[in-house]
Amino acid sequence: MKFEKPVPVQWLAEFTGARLLGNTMQEATGINEIHKVTTGDISFVDFEKYYNACLNSAATIIIINKEVDCPEGKTLLVTPDPFSAYVKIVKRFRPFEPANKMVSDSAFIGEGTLLQPGVFVGNHVRIGNNCLIHPNVTIYDHTEIGDNVIIHAGCVIGADAFYFKRRRDQEMQYDKLESCGRVIIQNDVEIGAGSTIDKGVSGDTIIGAGTKLDNHIHIGHGAVIGKNCLFAAQVGIGGKAIIEDEVILWGQVGVSKDLTIGKGAVVMAQSGVPASIEGGRSYFGSPVGEAKPKMRELAWIKRIPELWEKVYGNKNL
Amino acid sequence: MKFEKPVPVQWLAEFTGARLLGNTMQEATGINEIHKVTTGDISFVDFEKYYNACLNSAATIIIINKEVDCPEGKTLLVTPDPFSAYVKIVKRFRPFEPANKMVSDSAFIGEGTLLQPGVFVGNHVRIGNNCLIHPNVTIYDHTEIGDNVIIHAGCVIGADAFYFKRRRDQEMQYDKLESCGRVIIQNDVEIGAGSTIDKGVSGDTIIGAGTKLDNHIHIGHGAVIGKNCLFAAQVGIGGKAIIEDEVILWGQVGVSKDLTIGKGAVVMAQSGVPASIEGGRSYFGSPVGEAKPKMRELAWIKRIPELWEKVYGNKNL
Amino acid sequence: MKFEKPVPVQWLAEFTGARLLGNTMQEATGINEIHKVTTGDISFVDFEKYYNACLNSAATIIIINKEVDCPEGKTLLVTPDPFSAYVKIVKRFRPFEPANKMVSDSAFIGEGTLLQPGVFVGNHVRIGNNCLIHPNVTIYDHTEIGDNVIIHAGCVIGADAFYFKRRRDQEMQYDKLESCGRVIIQNDVEIGAGSTIDKGVSGDTIIGAGTKLDNHIHIGHGAVIGKNCLFAAQVGIGGKAIIEDEVILWGQVGVSKDLTIGKGAVVMAQSGVPASIEGGRSYFGSPVGEAKPKMRELAWIKRIPELWEKVYGNKNL
Repeated sequence: MKFEKPVPVQWLAEFTGARLLGNTMQEATGINEIHKVTTGDISFVDFEKYYNACLNSAATIIIINKEVDCPEGKTLLVTPDPFSAYVKIVKRFRPFEPANKMVSDSAFIGEGTLLQPGVFVGNHVRIGNNCLIHPNVTIYDHTEIGDNVIIHAGCVIGADAFYFKRRRDQEMQYDKLESCGRVIIQNDVEIGAGSTIDKGVSGDTIIGAGTKLDNHIHIGHGAVIGKNCLFAAQVGIGGKAIIEDEVILWGQVGVSKDLTIGKGAVVMAQSGVPASIEGGRSYFGSPVGEAKPKMRELAWIKRIPELWEKVYGNKNL
Repeated sequence: MKFEKPVPVQWLAEFTGARLLGNTMQEATGINEIHKVTTGDISFVDFEKYYNACLNSAATIIIINKEVDCPEGKTLLVTPDPFSAYVKIVKRFRPFEPANKMVSDSAFIGEGTLLQPGVFVGNHVRIGNNCLIHPNVTIYDHTEIGDNVIIHAGCVIGADAFYFKRRRDQEMQYDKLESCGRVIIQNDVEIGAGSTIDKGVSGDTIIGAGTKLDNHIHIGHGAVIGKNCLFAAQVGIGGKAIIEDEVILWGQVGVSKDLTIGKGAVVMAQSGVPASIEGGRSYFGSPVGEAKPKMRELAWIKRIPELWEKVYGNKNL
Repeated sequence: MKFEKPVPVQWLAEFTGARLLGNTMQEATGINEIHKVTTGDISFVDFEKYYNACLNSAATIIIINKEVDCPEGKTLLVTPDPFSAYVKIVKRFRPFEPANKMVSDSAFIGEGTLLQPGVFVGNHVRIGNNCLIHPNVTIYDHTEIGDNVIIHAGCVIGADAFYFKRRRDQEMQYDKLESCGRVIIQNDVEIGAGSTIDKGVSGDTIIGAGTKLDNHIHIGHGAVIGKNCLFAAQVGIGGKAIIEDEVILWGQVGVSKDLTIGKGAVVMAQSGVPASIEGGRSYFGSPVGEAKPKMRELAWIKRIPELWEKVYGNKNL
């Protein structure tokens, strides 16, 4: 997320109760998770093993829980609880704004776009031209929707990321990483009934132009779906997954977070994708393998009793 | 879909810019996909390998992309893009009608039927007697619901078929096959919260009398579900699947499109049904096999290390 | 379910047309399924093989379809159809109450709690303080929600149990066991978009404090979920399952009914849990086994062709 105007690090230090190290005259232009940061961004780190990655990232301002050498030109905000400081800044600059009507006055609705009854459109939402939003759809704040988009009834666009951090005390409770990202739906997308697309934690969840989603599909926070993909019903995509263009996922496929499915890959029904797979091929199984060898495995399994009998002289189970 | 009154083929030729061959005085009484056509129907074909099937089907008027011999008594509408001509006719005779209130004036609601708050009932919907429709349910236009039906909150009945055709040009985009079918829910059906039932592309999606669906169930376009079936939560049924009477599907079962599950079949949880299966038996696995042999396979797999050791003298992986 | 005030067994006998045996001066204080009964409760039994379990349970009043010896201090209500008598009593004391507005006048909404537009809150619902209920959520009658609870858009809390009994006549129809249980959501729970949590048949479905559910999750009737659990998207939990504290279920996991998952267990994505599993371990597969041996099975399967070749001298399939 980018701020509307730059925020001085001295204000941030006071706001979060952190101590400033390094360049104390810096201004922050945004706030992001470590994998999304660009120059001017605030990020945070609270595990020693990730210190170097964060200090050497593009982040300009780093909230950290230990006094370390500040890299040239950067600013450190030192505080015992960087996670909470980060969440406090997110809540300050992207606060939850209660709605008082079904379609917010701050939403922009393009020409020729039809909202059916029962559609909720949150604050600062932008919807392009010639879209059709069917009844009882919910569109959370800050969502951006292109032209010629069809969203079927009961969909939820832009709900919070499912992202929690275990608290390190006696009880195993979770703290919520507040989301400040958005959902962006490009032109000519169609989304089936009852699907849900979560906003990114700090970046954007994107549905590429021309992609068609069937019913009951779940797209996790910050996932980036390419153009002209087809996902059949009940597919689930984990957070920050990258699905390249023209990928086809059949029904009930599950895709884990933080991976890439290459362009034009086809994944057969009920398969599970736990790690990145190359484009241009067909896959099957949970966990997936390439479809043909995976199918042959099923045939080999049926031969075990025969093999057993050959070796042992019987095939009693 | 049947038209309200017959449509002369000469009007159709002019409307779609097609050239007429064969009987030019014919009148069309409906429009249907090839697998649903009856006498008087318009259908379309645009792949040479399906020409014969379409020309020899019950369809009386055929939209086709090549000049061929017209079968006796039929009419051909020749145009370079039969798909678009078909979609144009569907949109003309079953246009999308925007709603301006939650319950359409053209909907019929039977005696003793209760609509809870937030229920959307589209145009030309018919709901029988003594039904209970829970909050925030969406019922699209033309849906027909029998007596004593219970629909739980958040369901979506009659959303568009998930049916797209790849465009044959440089970019791999999809064109939408507009749906003109309906959903028909027979008497004594109960549908669990958040379930979605899509309308047929040109025919009807049917939920047979006495069938009970749990939550989060997806029924694809044109599927025909028999009487007194039980589907547990998160089951997904592909388009045009035929599920005969008294079939039991346990949780998260996935059923592919264009197949038949025979009467009284039982499919165990998380199984996947890729092709037709006979009635009266139990099934398990993804893809499914009969339950008992499939369960034995699991036991045989556990024996591979022992077999390996017998043959090789060790069981190192 | 407990009655608001005790109900004399003589009134019950007349109301259901049953014959009284045993203590005819008793008063019933509640009605429950056999596995939930406590002293003072009515329960029912209609299968001979369950007679002893029911007669020896904590139930004080038993509806039964055969004249048997009445245990000391108890009351029998003898009728040919105990199921229907039970349902008749449930409907009398927990009748369906139609809503006439989105938020019932009999609902209690705590301080600082925000209901976004399109939220339905049924009769006798209690919601604690500082909750945030997003748009188009449906909360059925009698639900109880604690403090600091977040429910995302499109959720359905408290729909009926999916519980049907086959009728024993020529047609294989189902009778519905009417639910009189509730959903109880404890403090600090967050529920993802489009999730559904069914009420218990006679007891309560409970979501323990601090538990976080992702999108499209289904929780069956009477399930009891512990504290600080994490369930990823599209998980399904069967009726009356007990999930102890700090259990982690990854995406699309399916859990059968009537079982226990022990404290701190972790179940990997797409796995299926058909029976109880111990806490503190990781599981994988459908059906699940412990994760490591189950993963090794996958490696052993890939070795079958080599083993075959060693034994047979070829590996043709």
